[in-house]
Amino acid sequence: MVNQDELNKWVSAIQKGDRIALSKAITLIESLKPEDRNTASLLLKKLVPNHSNTLRIGITGPPGAGKSTLIEALGLHIIQQGYRVAVLSIDPSSAITKGSILGDKTRMNKLSLETKAFIRPSPAGEHLGGVAQRTRESIWLCEAAGFDFILVETAGIGQSEYQVSTMTDLTILMTISGAGDELQGIKKGIMEWADIIVLNKVDDEKDLKAIASYKDLVVASHFAESRITGWDRKILKTAALHDKGIDLLFSEIESFKSRFSENQFIQSNRTHQLISYYHDLLKIKLLDTLISRPEIQKYIGETEKNLLRLEISPEEAADISIRFIFALFNNQ
Amino acid sequence: MVNQDELNKWVSAIQKGDRIALSKAITLIESLKPEDRNTASLLLKKLVPNHSNTLRIGITGPPGAGKSTLIEALGLHIIQQGYRVAVLSIDPSSAITKGSILGDKTRMNKLSLETKAFIRPSPAGEHLGGVAQRTRESIWLCEAAGFDFILVETAGIGQSEYQVSTMTDLTILMTISGAGDELQGIKKGIMEWADIIVLNKVDDEKDLKAIASYKDLVVASHFAESRITGWDRKILKTAALHDKGIDLLFSEIESFKSRFSENQFIQSNRTHQLISYYHDLLKIKLLDTLISRPEIQKYIGETEKNLLRLEISPEEAADISIRFIFALFNNQ
Repeated sequence: MVNQDELNKWVSAIQKGDRIALSKAITLIESLKPEDRNTASLLLKKLVPNHSNTLRIGITGPPGAGKSTLIEALGLHIIQQGYRVAVLSIDPSSAITKGSILGDKTRMNKLSLETKAFIRPSPAGEHLGGVAQRTRESIWLCEAAGFDFILVETAGIGQSEYQVSTMTDLTILMTISGAGDELQGIKKGIMEWADIIVLNKVDDEKDLKAIASYKDLVVASHFAESRITGWDRKILKTAALHDKGIDLLFSEIESFKSRFSENQFIQSNRTHQLISYYHDLLKIKLLDTLISRPEIQKYIGETEKNLLRLEISPEEAADISIRFIFALFNNQ
Repeated sequence: MVNQDELNKWVSAIQKGDRIALSKAITLIESLKPEDRNTASLLLKKLVPNHSNTLRIGITGPPGAGKSTLIEALGLHIIQQGYRVAVLSIDPSSAITKGSILGDKTRMNKLSLETKAFIRPSPAGEHLGGVAQRTRESIWLCEAAGFDFILVETAGIGQSEYQVSTMTDLTILMTISGAGDELQGIKKGIMEWADIIVLNKVDDEKDLKAIASYKDLVVASHFAESRITGWDRKILKTAALHDKGIDLLFSEIESFKSRFSENQFIQSNRTHQLISYYHDLLKIKLLDTLISRPEIQKYIGETEKNLLRLEISPEEAADISIRFIFALFNNQ
């Protein structure tokens, strides 16, 4: 546990943009030890910001779409415009071992050398809820440290897009042309979350596969309404490895930012996200408090035995346990 | 609400393998109406099986790997061996609109014509927890209806593999060679869940890309221990579209089944899964019961206002709400 004086120094170092202090704070947030959680809460309380002038960008897409390459190119471009950029990567596939076998070492070499950049990979851990909490808090810390653009990278197709869209202002969906299904597995549900779609690895504008994929994306996009009133989903072509199309991508990002800062969409969306986050935390903490009580743990253990003898169904087991928990509270 | 007589007829139709009765029962399970849930509970109570002679197989992998094609070929092969096969597909990407734009119409044409097959796509809905519950119950119903092999298909990379592995006996991970990253985004964490890895679309055994990808998989597999003692992860090559390698895949599945039925792994794994499922249900139902109370809803509404004025952090908001909930129960 750090004392008040150390805490104040830490807070002020983060506010000055000290990347080591920021990095330590994120490590604290990721810790599962209760005493670390206490310190993290104190730190966040002093730092929880209302930085309406930052932009939180989620970047998602299937493996192989070139997310890291694009983020490096975009990050370098952002720095050239005089801004500071933070990159938070969530890896939902590393649930057990918290690491991937290939590919981590060589990621974002150039960007990681820049003093105006901060790059932080995060293991997903076992629970998606935990990821959401930690990532959200890490975003706040990066904003408190003065980063203007926060890029949140998430791997995979599926639930993770939805999660990332609950903590960012703008969602970019990346894909590549023709490696299998027509749209590389992009389904309507995912497309509806995407504000910008990037077709990456288009080295040659005249490549027939790329032209066909681009057309497919345009057609498919018509079937999925934009989630934001007044925003037409943008579909862009890039070749991130050769820095092609990155300037146009950034100008679309800037246009999104200026437009939705003005009409307050970004602010009202963040408000909505903050309330959802409070609800999620309430649920997680409430369960933790209730179920960890020894009498309840004992009852659950006995119910498990009845369940295994197939005397009751899992649903009945849950129902009788809830009645027990309520009776316990009412008789105290 | 159905009456007792109708319910008994329904149960008996399912037990006779009637696919229409089975289909209706799964629709009931997927319904969110409380009265449907009551009927579903009654139905499940009469049907919750202990079918230790079935095999529940999870099939997962990135979009474009050819999951549907492989499942069709494998399903037809299973039928040729004299068994009945059920296919449950979960689509986690269709969270909003419950549908995908492309590709659903033409899936598993041949298999769907077979009377010994049952194919059922399921929308994922908004909550992964809900998917897990419905899929698990659908598996039980298929077993009660006498299907020998239950194939559970899940799209995407990430959390969904973990979910599917909590309700199946055997997990098959599919991939294809060289469309981007070395291992098409397969990370160690995912590999650890996989009991069999299938490299699909290997039309030509001498194709250099396929040879390289196969080697990569073998090397990577060494870094990820098998989750089951006594089982060495199998890595197979298939060309499902041309029915190549399907016989070998099925013989590995059969060898898994006979081996782990004998040493009771399948049974003890199912026991473990049943208990986890009870815990999940308990949590979902407990929260639902607690948070839906009007006094608590009112308090949460007021706390939201304080949160939006940034007078408290989301974590504090959760903490004071929990204190309120406990005080309410203790004073009743």
